[in-house]
Amino acid sequence: MAASGKVKVGIIGSGFEADIHAASFKILPEEAEVVAVASPTHGHPEALAGKYGIQRVFHDYREMLKEKDIEMITINAPNSLHCAMTRDIALAGKHVICEKPLAMTIEEADEMIDVCKKQGVLLMYAEELLFTPKYLKAKEMADQGAFGKVYLVKQSEKHSGPHAAWFWDMDKSGGGVFMDMGCHGIAFCYWFLGRPKIKSVYCQMGTYAHADKTKGEDNSICILEFENGAVGLIEDSWAKHGGMDDTAEIYGTEGVSYADLHMGNALPTFSGPGYGYAVEKAPSTQGWTYPVFEEHWNYGLPQELRHFARCVRGKEIPRSTGEDGRLVQEVLLAGYQSAGTGRKVELPFRPKGVKKPIDLWWNPAAVR
Amino acid sequence: MAASGKVKVGIIGSGFEADIHAASFKILPEEAEVVAVASPTHGHPEALAGKYGIQRVFHDYREMLKEKDIEMITINAPNSLHCAMTRDIALAGKHVICEKPLAMTIEEADEMIDVCKKQGVLLMYAEELLFTPKYLKAKEMADQGAFGKVYLVKQSEKHSGPHAAWFWDMDKSGGGVFMDMGCHGIAFCYWFLGRPKIKSVYCQMGTYAHADKTKGEDNSICILEFENGAVGLIEDSWAKHGGMDDTAEIYGTEGVSYADLHMGNALPTFSGPGYGYAVEKAPSTQGWTYPVFEEHWNYGLPQELRHFARCVRGKEIPRSTGEDGRLVQEVLLAGYQSAGTGRKVELPFRPKGVKKPIDLWWNPAAVR
Amino acid sequence: MAASGKVKVGIIGSGFEADIHAASFKILPEEAEVVAVASPTHGHPEALAGKYGIQRVFHDYREMLKEKDIEMITINAPNSLHCAMTRDIALAGKHVICEKPLAMTIEEADEMIDVCKKQGVLLMYAEELLFTPKYLKAKEMADQGAFGKVYLVKQSEKHSGPHAAWFWDMDKSGGGVFMDMGCHGIAFCYWFLGRPKIKSVYCQMGTYAHADKTKGEDNSICILEFENGAVGLIEDSWAKHGGMDDTAEIYGTEGVSYADLHMGNALPTFSGPGYGYAVEKAPSTQGWTYPVFEEHWNYGLPQELRHFARCVRGKEIPRSTGEDGRLVQEVLLAGYQSAGTGRKVELPFRPKGVKKPIDLWWNPAAVR
Amino acid sequence: MAASGKVKVGIIGSGFEADIHAASFKILPEEAEVVAVASPTHGHPEALAGKYGIQRVFHDYREMLKEKDIEMITINAPNSLHCAMTRDIALAGKHVICEKPLAMTIEEADEMIDVCKKQGVLLMYAEELLFTPKYLKAKEMADQGAFGKVYLVKQSEKHSGPHAAWFWDMDKSGGGVFMDMGCHGIAFCYWFLGRPKIKSVYCQMGTYAHADKTKGEDNSICILEFENGAVGLIEDSWAKHGGMDDTAEIYGTEGVSYADLHMGNALPTFSGPGYGYAVEKAPSTQGWTYPVFEEHWNYGLPQELRHFARCVRGKEIPRSTGEDGRLVQEVLLAGYQSAGTGRKVELPFRPKGVKKPIDLWWNPAAVR
Repeated sequence: MAASGKVKVGIIGSGFEADIHAASFKILPEEAEVVAVASPTHGHPEALAGKYGIQRVFHDYREMLKEKDIEMITINAPNSLHCAMTRDIALAGKHVICEKPLAMTIEEADEMIDVCKKQGVLLMYAEELLFTPKYLKAKEMADQGAFGKVYLVKQSEKHSGPHAAWFWDMDKSGGGVFMDMGCHGIAFCYWFLGRPKIKSVYCQMGTYAHADKTKGEDNSICILEFENGAVGLIEDSWAKHGGMDDTAEIYGTEGVSYADLHMGNALPTFSGPGYGYAVEKAPSTQGWTYPVFEEHWNYGLPQELRHFARCVRGKEIPRSTGEDGRLVQEVLLAGYQSAGTGRKVELPFRPKGVKKPIDLWWNPAAVR
Repeated sequence: MAASGKVKVGIIGSGFEADIHAASFKILPEEAEVVAVASPTHGHPEALAGKYGIQRVFHDYREMLKEKDIEMITINAPNSLHCAMTRDIALAGKHVICEKPLAMTIEEADEMIDVCKKQGVLLMYAEELLFTPKYLKAKEMADQGAFGKVYLVKQSEKHSGPHAAWFWDMDKSGGGVFMDMGCHGIAFCYWFLGRPKIKSVYCQMGTYAHADKTKGEDNSICILEFENGAVGLIEDSWAKHGGMDDTAEIYGTEGVSYADLHMGNALPTFSGPGYGYAVEKAPSTQGWTYPVFEEHWNYGLPQELRHFARCVRGKEIPRSTGEDGRLVQEVLLAGYQSAGTGRKVELPFRPKGVKKPIDLWWNPAAVR
Repeated sequence: MAASGKVKVGIIGSGFEADIHAASFKILPEEAEVVAVASPTHGHPEALAGKYGIQRVFHDYREMLKEKDIEMITINAPNSLHCAMTRDIALAGKHVICEKPLAMTIEEADEMIDVCKKQGVLLMYAEELLFTPKYLKAKEMADQGAFGKVYLVKQSEKHSGPHAAWFWDMDKSGGGVFMDMGCHGIAFCYWFLGRPKIKSVYCQMGTYAHADKTKGEDNSICILEFENGAVGLIEDSWAKHGGMDDTAEIYGTEGVSYADLHMGNALPTFSGPGYGYAVEKAPSTQGWTYPVFEEHWNYGLPQELRHFARCVRGKEIPRSTGEDGRLVQEVLLAGYQSAGTGRKVELPFRPKGVKKPIDLWWNPAAVR
Repeated sequence: MAASGKVKVGIIGSGFEADIHAASFKILPEEAEVVAVASPTHGHPEALAGKYGIQRVFHDYREMLKEKDIEMITINAPNSLHCAMTRDIALAGKHVICEKPLAMTIEEADEMIDVCKKQGVLLMYAEELLFTPKYLKAKEMADQGAFGKVYLVKQSEKHSGPHAAWFWDMDKSGGGVFMDMGCHGIAFCYWFLGRPKIKSVYCQMGTYAHADKTKGEDNSICILEFENGAVGLIEDSWAKHGGMDDTAEIYGTEGVSYADLHMGNALPTFSGPGYGYAVEKAPSTQGWTYPVFEEHWNYGLPQELRHFARCVRGKEIPRSTGEDGRLVQEVLLAGYQSAGTGRKVELPFRPKGVKKPIDLWWNPAAVR
């Protein structure tokens, strides 16, 4: 492997997230280039490779791991596979970028952290909200004292349902929208406040719009209490119409700021005939819409992946790590437990014998 | 007392709320007129009377109750006095409009309902959000099926602190911002959803900005679960800067709507020199501000008071009653209990021996 | 005729504007009541009368003018009839409220003013923007010095086309959207700035979307220069999609304010199934829409008509008069002349022999 | 000079625009790097060099032109110097990026185009709005037919006054805000509509807020008529408070879109203490502000400069050329003439003997 030059990257997956990774590396090509993609379904990785000029295609990611020159692998696969893949990648001596959430259980998270440490590779947790330009501006202002002492951070992601069918299957995803998108809000509040200890987690959740397709929750409300007295309020939904929403609000003793990535960035537009693309999950481009522009950039995805490549080259220190992912995992578990018991759950929370997070909502008494 | 003509009204109080009542009756003068005001501090009721051309002034509301021609009394006084005042008014044979929240305890609420019933007078609970034009439009759309089945209703009121000093004194107010403004959100969600039974209440609260002035909470988050499966999320704050906020959001299986009474109605304005008035609790009129217009009308206050006068004349049935106020009271008590225990509290919740709601947060174990 | 009590009103017309008048008098019933309606098409005035409980119906407005108790008549008829109707009403000894624009020519405007003066009745020009709450707030701030010296006032009204077919017919309307809605912006800028003399008028116009239906312009841009150095920029369109727009912007040497009556007041709403009503000219209630609430109130229509009734009782002085309407007429004529010549036209502008304003655009050289 | 590798860039200037150029090349470093800066005032280029790690500093740009390896020069200097600098750069065999507006006169523009052509170097006109992501999205939608036939394009830039003192001096700038920022709107409308011929120009302008500092106009309104029937409405101001504005609006026969780069992208924020930076020309960071983020990116500046570097390498064709700059120049001249005469000016407009554009406003009869 090279110690300089562009970092050579292999992508696991060929769906929505894999496409974003490939596109993002193209937007900021200075530090890394995608040289391979692996995905089991014939035709899928080929399509991605064709679209982005990726030269090597594999149907078994383990074959891709044999490529000597590849230094970094990004995992875009169902949550239930993250741990095993990370183990394989680390054992092949390559750095890992793992999409969120990190794992199904804390045990898995521990294992992922351990194996990467032992193999001397980086485990980088792909939480893009730590790179989102609008959110970085909010944090910059907070750190400059704009809001006095921040006592409440809100983050919310809402749309009409997940990208891939495996999210509906709780054995593959481990949970519904709280698992899928709540993980963003948890990481965001924690990071925004400067990583104070999380004292407690309360969750309310239900399945309101998609009970025909899943037993997972499609709407969740989560309240975090931090040791420094601040509160996080995290709302997520797979049952919200009219296109994706991603917002944060910061409340301090001397100020307030509202960051809205979609309707707050978009061009309010009315079109009779419609047009190409408005925003993720927009049901139509006719009538009034809120088209966004440079979606990847405005989420911070190219910036995130460039950062990770620079970490591989030793130019930066990972801003989001396996340890962050493990903490998020603990909060996810505590959240499901809370939704099942109607009580707030104190951290640390290390339930034993959990197979998948959502079991703690369905059957909270099962926790030892 | 007259059975026709304008309803003659007496106002108890001479502060912020009393002024709003006097102003609101002027805006829609067809059904009622204010003929008297009572407030103990010399000079205060005189000032209000002078401002609005009210002819009779009293320093003891009991004297005002002796006026034969007065048919309806509005109470704008500390929460701790609501019950005794209502009793006196009812015994004087006059109709009661009581500002929110209705009382300190459920026992008081019961007593208020009972005495009014026995005396054959109306007990009208002044929840203006049921008359707010923008919120009425949201409900009209919901009732027309615009959103499919509504599964989440949010309501929030936030500003930098209360109008009168007695709010800081828990013996007079009974609680902080959850008591002061949470009562609006509770009534709103309940009414919006068509008054389904409330199953449970969860609350998180704290004192973040005003600990030097009060032991009451200045920020609260409340989650209601309704029997029909819907959820209410209610946020309130006395620690939010930049002027009053009052918003509602409606989420259904087929749509969503956002109603913002302040920044969402206002004229975004930049002024170097400043000007007369921007909005409740605005710290300044210089720089960027969000001035509102016809504030009373946009809250629905004149419409509410006209409605109550029409109820006295038998032309309409009260839209917001003592029973509504009592239910809100029960939720307030359950909310404080929940904040104290970290658990959601199931309704019905009839704690015995409560002196003031906030005791249940400070000392949740005291409940029998 | 009574000198006290509610002013008895007769409405000429049964279409869109007549309906607004009837509804507006109902919203603020203290000062006036509609007792009669006149409209030639059988069934139409009957429908309006049924909807609003109006007791007398006529098919010839001249018959209505014979009713002794009626004191005030509102004209909601094609522009080409305004002058003759005003003459008839004045000769019947009744006060006149004339919808905008006042007339077809300045000669007509002169005649209307003269006959009303001679008969001792009021000629009130129904320019509702002088009563629009949001715009009043902007003016209040301006008058308080919020913006320093105001050097630019913008006003714009845009929607997808007029309410009634007669607007397309230049013989009845006298002009397109500049005539129909530009008159609002002219009156607004003039009033907002405190009625300074208008020095010059420049107009650009064209027929972009409705050439199949009309020879009138469906989009216009107008620049006014005032003697005090300020500028008015007025934009109007019948070719704008997605629902009605009505906005004003105020620029001063020390500040700025933006007033938006529609998207700036509305509830951003997404609905799959749709619902009752969003806003004037909204093409649909499905998808994203901007529903408004209390439309008449937010335009100031009930307030305007109450004001006019109070003027009849001598309680107020007309805020918008025949003289205002005549000045607007002069600017309309100058605007069409300017669009025809590509030059700004200096005021006073008293072209001779004009039949209808738009002739000056079509054939600017015809002016003597 | 190299035919591959990063393009080596020299910057003329060390003020506001030069800083933006240096910063922008850093954001997208793949294609070019700044190796030198030249500015006459001692200390200024040194400061810029220090801030961005630029290795070579000159106080006479002609010295910088002797550097063999430099391939591309960007001009950030008073308008009156653009022509002479371009000539020198071209004669030194280097490619030219010239900040807007291109020149003082059409003769200068012609000369710049000619000398570059003769010397075989590119003359690239730095109109960043052709690279602004939000505006690109609007154009993409328009080109997809979202709005039907576009009949009106509006573009506006407004703030409280220019960055450098030389803008106030008409001998150096050639004109006021219409020259400084109107050039953006002219280029934008022309490009957005697909470069149709411009038929006519009308302008209204005045000096409202800065008469103490300049004889140049600080507010301008410009109407363009295109051969395809469309209209451009361009508003610019140096007299607008509360921070920079940059907006575009697109009106078509079947739709409409609003693009707002500042308030429409920003985080609405209230801060008591204030913070680092809100937006260009924001008077304060206290109270309500609209802080923007990644300002250069959201204007498209890094993307623009990367594009120009790629043009030097032959990978792309310049999107904005000297010819575009010359057309803008012609419109600027016509605009001043129009403001002086009160008439719309037909294109082509080739006035003889013009020294600086604003002379045509001050003394329109002087044109031969």
